[in-house]
Amino acid sequence: MWKDLGLNLEAHDQLMAVLGRAYKDIYMSQENRPKAMQYLDFVISEVHGLRVKELIDDKQKGNKVFGTFCVYVPEELILAAGGTCVGLCAGAEIGIDEAEKVLPRNTCALIKSFMGFKLAGLCPYIQASDLVVGETTCDGKKKAYEILNDYKETYVMEIPQMKTERDRTLWRGEIIQFKEKVEKLTGRKITAENLKEGIKIANEKRRALQRLSALRKAVPSPISGLDGLLVNQIAFYDDPPRFTRQINALCDELEERVKNGIGVTKNGTPRILVSGSPMAVPNWKIPFIIETSGAIVVAEESCVGERSTRDLVDENGKSLEKMIDAIVDRYFKIDCACFTQNEERTGHIVELAKDFKVNGVVHYSIQFCTPYTVEAYKVEKALQEKGIPFLKIETDYGMEDVGQLKSRIEAFLEMVKR
Amino acid sequence: MWKDLGLNLEAHDQLMAVLGRAYKDIYMSQENRPKAMQYLDFVISEVHGLRVKELIDDKQKGNKVFGTFCVYVPEELILAAGGTCVGLCAGAEIGIDEAEKVLPRNTCALIKSFMGFKLAGLCPYIQASDLVVGETTCDGKKKAYEILNDYKETYVMEIPQMKTERDRTLWRGEIIQFKEKVEKLTGRKITAENLKEGIKIANEKRRALQRLSALRKAVPSPISGLDGLLVNQIAFYDDPPRFTRQINALCDELEERVKNGIGVTKNGTPRILVSGSPMAVPNWKIPFIIETSGAIVVAEESCVGERSTRDLVDENGKSLEKMIDAIVDRYFKIDCACFTQNEERTGHIVELAKDFKVNGVVHYSIQFCTPYTVEAYKVEKALQEKGIPFLKIETDYGMEDVGQLKSRIEAFLEMVKR
Repeated sequence: MWKDLGLNLEAHDQLMAVLGRAYKDIYMSQENRPKAMQYLDFVISEVHGLRVKELIDDKQKGNKVFGTFCVYVPEELILAAGGTCVGLCAGAEIGIDEAEKVLPRNTCALIKSFMGFKLAGLCPYIQASDLVVGETTCDGKKKAYEILNDYKETYVMEIPQMKTERDRTLWRGEIIQFKEKVEKLTGRKITAENLKEGIKIANEKRRALQRLSALRKAVPSPISGLDGLLVNQIAFYDDPPRFTRQINALCDELEERVKNGIGVTKNGTPRILVSGSPMAVPNWKIPFIIETSGAIVVAEESCVGERSTRDLVDENGKSLEKMIDAIVDRYFKIDCACFTQNEERTGHIVELAKDFKVNGVVHYSIQFCTPYTVEAYKVEKALQEKGIPFLKIETDYGMEDVGQLKSRIEAFLEMVKR
Repeated sequence: MWKDLGLNLEAHDQLMAVLGRAYKDIYMSQENRPKAMQYLDFVISEVHGLRVKELIDDKQKGNKVFGTFCVYVPEELILAAGGTCVGLCAGAEIGIDEAEKVLPRNTCALIKSFMGFKLAGLCPYIQASDLVVGETTCDGKKKAYEILNDYKETYVMEIPQMKTERDRTLWRGEIIQFKEKVEKLTGRKITAENLKEGIKIANEKRRALQRLSALRKAVPSPISGLDGLLVNQIAFYDDPPRFTRQINALCDELEERVKNGIGVTKNGTPRILVSGSPMAVPNWKIPFIIETSGAIVVAEESCVGERSTRDLVDENGKSLEKMIDAIVDRYFKIDCACFTQNEERTGHIVELAKDFKVNGVVHYSIQFCTPYTVEAYKVEKALQEKGIPFLKIETDYGMEDVGQLKSRIEAFLEMVKR
């Protein structure tokens, strides 16, 4: 199977060994983890194993796989047509030499990573994908997809940059066109019936993740930020109904913890909101540093986090038309930094900070991620007005700056404790 | 007058002294310049003097000034309402410390420059502007305008990212909305009559610049690349009808030169096309290095160059509606790297290389200018296929890398001469 996928097997084995060690060091060393996290541990151990086999088996039944990098891709339409939506590998410093042959060195780590994974033949998900679905959320991705398309068919959705009625019209057109693309690729018509089912599956997943997020409001939090992030990361890979069941089981366990006042930290542990650029597997750098410095991350204001789960698609639409409108509306609400002005986001961060009773906000941007790096200025201003401590971090996937980041984060935590 | 503008007078005097010296060293040291360049020398000597006074005088008559940074802003509409469109200061390493207080350090030099000029109070044009008109061409500008708006009202036009019928609809809406904004600000209705005049003025300017560009196809070229660039830069500042007359006078002189086989270089001088990011006054770094290394720049494939002058607005429209459609179509053709896919641009560069009989293409991108930096890969591929030598340069406004750039450019020129 692996050979058929065109993977570079030797390098892939090395990668898996490194990933396994990192996971052991970062995840398995945590104390007092919820039992239900065992499922997530299993999924990670099989992230380039059983899950890929499932996709291949599914493809053999005639189903199609859509590889994505962004929360704007409407999973409902893919599910409706019996397809599977998977997040592609983009969270490790892999194939950088290859990536830098086609991309400028000063490109964000996430983009270099997905290009590197593809060029080095190390991502089974992109190999298994029938189509990569990109989007125009940032200059880096928008232009990199043109190059990725030389190696793997990449369909790009245009994301508007403002939220006027004109933009909604553009976005609606993009959704309709994507629906047609999905229908063509899968050979299946999207109907009110199967779309209703697709909407339900995606919403159920979001509801489970919303439930998890709400449980993290408890003081003490019943789950670590690393584990919370992991759940959000695996949401992009796993089979949606199974994942939903497992996360609900996790939430049942966490509810018990909350009821009994059990948490993963002692009283007085600083609670941190991490906000900014997405963190793809295995990018655990910032929460790991925060949580080994005596604090806990209680929420991720990020695409790999509550931005992708906050809003549901309205389920009251009876006709295909109404359902599509509901999808258009749901995705149009996302407050990505690609929009201008994007005051919804700064306002929302302030709200989250209050709701989650955080002691401070760590704004993370991947180096060279212009939208989030520039928007950090407005976020800082909004938080300053409310007296909420703020730390801005800009980093890549390398480990060279870990010591320096740890010092900065420790100093920040000292400050927020006062 | 200067004090009323809120300029930082002392720092502004210093800036003018530096600019004057640089101009003398770079421009006045050139040999065999066309006589008509004296007008351009005069304009530059008065770029923060008489021209600003003209704008202020004009404002006192009730006319409005629109400051811009991009060739997507439809000058025709501004002219129709009796307004003036001026390019804002963005070409020098000025106020960087101030700019870096609000923008990430790794922001492109052009963006840091416009922010720095504003925050340091050194650009009389932005001070004299009634409105700054921005656009969503790149992440850096799009997000920086949100911050600039805290210091100066900034109206942002949304530029689509693809060229579908949907995008044209969005763009048409943006043009109509901008027309309404211009009408509101100027208090003047845009009519078929005054818009016809606006279109004519803008087209006449473009025709003069097209004429100049065509004359540079001659071997030897009758004018240096530095002077050619200067003309394109001043096109953004000067009074359009006067500028058009002066450039036509320059072209008359150059026509004589071409007729008599007179050029600014000896036979066999390598001819270079410079392609990529825009060069605002006084960013003369790359053509200066090229032309003091034994080559000549014969064309600028750039917004400060033929991208902004190549297409005219169709003048056959009789109704306001038709004229607006002609404006929509004209600006929609621009092949900025903000579009995806942007094969029009790569194809056009190959055409230009042939038309201008160039020996090589120097692709210039401002460091951190993602759209052009990434697109350089596709440009290189297209030129490689045609066997046209290509050199990719990424730099900022600093002088630290001049020696290194000179070595690279000299080596490139040795190669293209073979």
